[in-house]
Amino acid sequence: MNLPSFVDLMEIAGTFAFAISGIRLASAKRFDWFGAYVVGLVTAIGGGTIRDILLNVTPFWMTNSMYLLCSAFALFWVILFGKYLIRLNNTFFVFDTIGLALFVVVGVEKTLALDYPIWVAVVMATLTGSAGGVMRDIFINEEPLFFRKEIYAMACVIGALVYCLCDRLGAETIVSQITCSVFIFIVRTLAVKYNICLPVLNGDDEYTEGNK
Amino acid sequence: MNLPSFVDLMEIAGTFAFAISGIRLASAKRFDWFGAYVVGLVTAIGGGTIRDILLNVTPFWMTNSMYLLCSAFALFWVILFGKYLIRLNNTFFVFDTIGLALFVVVGVEKTLALDYPIWVAVVMATLTGSAGGVMRDIFINEEPLFFRKEIYAMACVIGALVYCLCDRLGAETIVSQITCSVFIFIVRTLAVKYNICLPVLNGDDEYTEGNK
Amino acid sequence: MNLPSFVDLMEIAGTFAFAISGIRLASAKRFDWFGAYVVGLVTAIGGGTIRDILLNVTPFWMTNSMYLLCSAFALFWVILFGKYLIRLNNTFFVFDTIGLALFVVVGVEKTLALDYPIWVAVVMATLTGSAGGVMRDIFINEEPLFFRKEIYAMACVIGALVYCLCDRLGAETIVSQITCSVFIFIVRTLAVKYNICLPVLNGDDEYTEGNK
Repeated sequence: MNLPSFVDLMEIAGTFAFAISGIRLASAKRFDWFGAYVVGLVTAIGGGTIRDILLNVTPFWMTNSMYLLCSAFALFWVILFGKYLIRLNNTFFVFDTIGLALFVVVGVEKTLALDYPIWVAVVMATLTGSAGGVMRDIFINEEPLFFRKEIYAMACVIGALVYCLCDRLGAETIVSQITCSVFIFIVRTLAVKYNICLPVLNGDDEYTEGNK
Repeated sequence: MNLPSFVDLMEIAGTFAFAISGIRLASAKRFDWFGAYVVGLVTAIGGGTIRDILLNVTPFWMTNSMYLLCSAFALFWVILFGKYLIRLNNTFFVFDTIGLALFVVVGVEKTLALDYPIWVAVVMATLTGSAGGVMRDIFINEEPLFFRKEIYAMACVIGALVYCLCDRLGAETIVSQITCSVFIFIVRTLAVKYNICLPVLNGDDEYTEGNK
Repeated sequence: MNLPSFVDLMEIAGTFAFAISGIRLASAKRFDWFGAYVVGLVTAIGGGTIRDILLNVTPFWMTNSMYLLCSAFALFWVILFGKYLIRLNNTFFVFDTIGLALFVVVGVEKTLALDYPIWVAVVMATLTGSAGGVMRDIFINEEPLFFRKEIYAMACVIGALVYCLCDRLGAETIVSQITCSVFIFIVRTLAVKYNICLPVLNGDDEYTEGNK
């Protein structure tokens, strides 16, 4: 039974991909090594930390040093191979989507295990998958990408709903996990390929509530 | 005894008004629907969530889907009637103040029920009423309005003190609630009408601690 | 045995110095009194609050009004003597470092007391010492100083490791506290005097992930 090690591998790949995404944005802003490490770490573990605080359980990274080590490894990777990363963008898209799928699965499972209803599980899955990126953008003082063209969030919502549906239909855990992951992979790939995005809210320019 | 439904109505009106305020600012920034929904939701439930985390109780919106539905309704309202909202500003000022009063009342009551002293209740009431707006401004990457001209915070502090005073004097809960709400309404109305604001801190321009 | 009062004095000095740092930055941005108070308070207690939430204990300032009073005193100090503060920069450096040392000591002790491993204690000490400053910079809508040239974080990491090492070697608590504080003082002083900083991550300019 080496299923746990498969989930572990997914978790390592996902943490690594999320950390790389934070560290690369930090490097574009010329942060120092420590700052870049923190941004990478927050990108990777921020969403899950907020989820665990809301669920009132011990944040997952406080019981396993793997996540901090994995982010440190991502830092050294960028320091050593930063210039060659651009050619690997497709590989990183795959890693990143694996990470996203895993974060959604973990978010849904943790929430349902605590007997919360499905809609809380969907919120928690979306938080797990996207709050780290929002924290990253706040730290580097950019407007969160999330709010404009990020299909991350929709992929999380759809994936979480698919998982819950499978679960209700009595599917095995592993079937729910894989179905959910496949849906997330499809939604993200289609969204990127055909540049699908949600409609922009019709501007309400006169309303600025006193902000200059 | 239909008092609970009266409080419920106040809560719906308040959540709706706070969500509308977030969604309108998001629409001025041309966020997509999902981003605008998240900003509206955070404006409405962010303050109470931080309060509940600090008090170590389950965040209020995780046990009742009304808050998420109410924010979704606010989003559809802005999508459908966005252009006509400007004429309703006075109505929204009333809704918004009702929401603020309710948030202060709930913040004080939850804190006192856990046997914290009055000054903690005042802090929690202020957090409940204003932290959502601060989170909204951070998400849209604006300097929080709160810190410059927002009389929100002072209204929260005064309202919370009035509630605690009534409570100490042995007033009925409903009397404390109404007195507190009336004070908040008066403070906000006077502040807006006569443009009352706190003094600005005398600039200390040479001090920038290395920030460019 | 007046050791507790010595730690109390350090805590007052540290809170005061951290609050002053927040209030002065707020005054450079022309915040009003209340906004400046909140920024000062968050700078002083923000890091410890995040630590306590992660450790799932009651935030330290909710059981002792000293921290809120101390921040209020810092506000009045800046209002009254703001113009003369610049000459006191060396004094404030000392206060600030005392505060940092204390925050690290408290962070390590609280974490080890809950039976977490050393690396969690190092993370918590760093959070206690630096998260308040990051929150301050987010509130005033500046890119966190922390990520570029702040040796704060490194001083926290080294200080926390020194404390844990002393602890493992069987040193008395007071010896661990003083050794840790001395190391933090030395690291910060050397870093400021010789302008030591960590290397900047090699820019990866082409990577912007769609941010304009």
